[in-house]
Amino acid sequence: MPDLRKDPVVGRWVIIATDRAGRPSDFATEPVRPRGGPCPFCPGHEGRTPPEITAARPPEGVRDGPGWSLRVVPNKFPALRIEGDLEPTGEGLYDRMNGVGAHEVVIESSDHEASLATLSVDAVADVFLTFRDRILDLKKDPRFEYVLVFKNHGEAAGASLEHPHSQLIATPIIPIMVSEELKGSHEYWQRKERCVWCDVVRQERRDRRRVILETPGFVALAPFAPRFPFETWILPVRHRSAFEESGVEDLRELAEMIGRFVRGMNHALNSPPYNFMLHTAPLRDGALDHFHWHLEVIPKLTRVAGYEWGSGFFINPLPPEDAAEALRAACAEAGA
Amino acid sequence: MPDLRKDPVVGRWVIIATDRAGRPSDFATEPVRPRGGPCPFCPGHEGRTPPEITAARPPEGVRDGPGWSLRVVPNKFPALRIEGDLEPTGEGLYDRMNGVGAHEVVIESSDHEASLATLSVDAVADVFLTFRDRILDLKKDPRFEYVLVFKNHGEAAGASLEHPHSQLIATPIIPIMVSEELKGSHEYWQRKERCVWCDVVRQERRDRRRVILETPGFVALAPFAPRFPFETWILPVRHRSAFEESGVEDLRELAEMIGRFVRGMNHALNSPPYNFMLHTAPLRDGALDHFHWHLEVIPKLTRVAGYEWGSGFFINPLPPEDAAEALRAACAEAGA
Repeated sequence: MPDLRKDPVVGRWVIIATDRAGRPSDFATEPVRPRGGPCPFCPGHEGRTPPEITAARPPEGVRDGPGWSLRVVPNKFPALRIEGDLEPTGEGLYDRMNGVGAHEVVIESSDHEASLATLSVDAVADVFLTFRDRILDLKKDPRFEYVLVFKNHGEAAGASLEHPHSQLIATPIIPIMVSEELKGSHEYWQRKERCVWCDVVRQERRDRRRVILETPGFVALAPFAPRFPFETWILPVRHRSAFEESGVEDLRELAEMIGRFVRGMNHALNSPPYNFMLHTAPLRDGALDHFHWHLEVIPKLTRVAGYEWGSGFFINPLPPEDAAEALRAACAEAGA
Repeated sequence: MPDLRKDPVVGRWVIIATDRAGRPSDFATEPVRPRGGPCPFCPGHEGRTPPEITAARPPEGVRDGPGWSLRVVPNKFPALRIEGDLEPTGEGLYDRMNGVGAHEVVIESSDHEASLATLSVDAVADVFLTFRDRILDLKKDPRFEYVLVFKNHGEAAGASLEHPHSQLIATPIIPIMVSEELKGSHEYWQRKERCVWCDVVRQERRDRRRVILETPGFVALAPFAPRFPFETWILPVRHRSAFEESGVEDLRELAEMIGRFVRGMNHALNSPPYNFMLHTAPLRDGALDHFHWHLEVIPKLTRVAGYEWGSGFFINPLPPEDAAEALRAACAEAGA
């Protein structure tokens, strides 16, 4: 059973994912990813994944058979296990609980070569609708407090398979980075009675220097204090705390912007490896006045070294105004 | 001038290190490190670094000449600039200040092939005494609030040069990770009137499962909730908040333990790239009852991917009890 353990000083929980573990000697070099052989996410190899949770396929199709355009399956090497109770226990001054959670993979297309840059707007919208539907479904499980949706694209960004996919992890704990956003935005609300992200969106749309793309409902911008070169945040213009409350039309508009953004980023940065992470309100919080969901996109271009690990103080060699200018131009050139 | 900028939500400052920047197009691939050519840290090439701040050399030696056993020089590509005032300013809802700070390199030996695993105890002790003396010197500059000492060893851990070296960065801001430790340990103190790290040391020495190495004055242990496989903390057994108050004998004992630990780690993990980071109390805080300095060592074995970046919730595939057992055995086998 995986273990959830809490650092007694800063309160940061970690997942000790014993189900993924090898022996200590397996870590002697960068773990080698299995390569070659048939792609387990390609049509015809459905038996190489755990049985599907849901899929988009024509009505005559068969579960775990071919013909699908999108599949959701449990991660074959899950960080957390879906069965069991939390059983929180102390161990002297330490706190732990069982590593209960869901770890799912969204296989975004049957086409091994596709990506968010090449999929149709409808297909990308289906991916984001699937995120919404999976969050709504996992919300029914009272053990879970949070669902984090994320994507690792490219080996340097942590992807172990090329086939286009994203993932989600449901946890009994609100991740510390989200807690800190909740805390900071709550303090801002208490001082100003305004959502800090609404203020950011207003100021950035007026200022223009850090805006990369805009639609009536969404804005993509380089944040004022980015940790990484070309870090980009995509936010709905109107206040909304829970991603899963987005409507079909909202997500279609988001999908169109994501496609434009990824094509521009690929053009500017030679199709870099990247991560995205969706920050939405915790499952049990209802609509929050002070939280505003957003998608963080981080191209993997630089190494994080000792100073950043030790301090949390990131050294970013590129001003976000320059990053935004380059991405804005690239989005235009890429015909985005 | 580099810029310090604060995230308006979580209060995390970043360094926009314009002095290190290239044009946006330079980021299109992983930045290429300059290779080949003479090593700027080797004896005889002293002119290839900025003029030295201090060095250990025989009395007849000449500043910036050869004959030294250890040198401290400003980083040639500093993240922060030593001259200037902070000039904190607002920009709408954002906060920024000038990127004033010190960024120094400790060249640990004249021998290009040396490492903490092969240097004599005296030579390693000199490195840690130099950290102490540089902190004491930088403390005199009223602009600085914190000095973080760290090491990047090996390219995957962010080192751009092979020659054995470590670095320190002095900042006008207390880094967020240290602030969080201060806050968490202060809360623990308020509840229990005990230092949380003193409690950790006591519990771990009794429990034994996570202890890697011990001397009368120091303990090396696998923390209960490690972010990374083989993450190791080295702490003084007796309560002490400020590293720079360590005596010569303390640092000699620490040096001996570091050598043993690195030889054991190299034996267990095939000489991995690694980082270490020294967490000590802020410069202006005096002796703190609730803070306890410690050195964090992190072998670079796994990739950090989207989930960790988005959540701060680390997935560690190796229980620390297993890591400690493997490192303990390796330290014994390496004759450490």
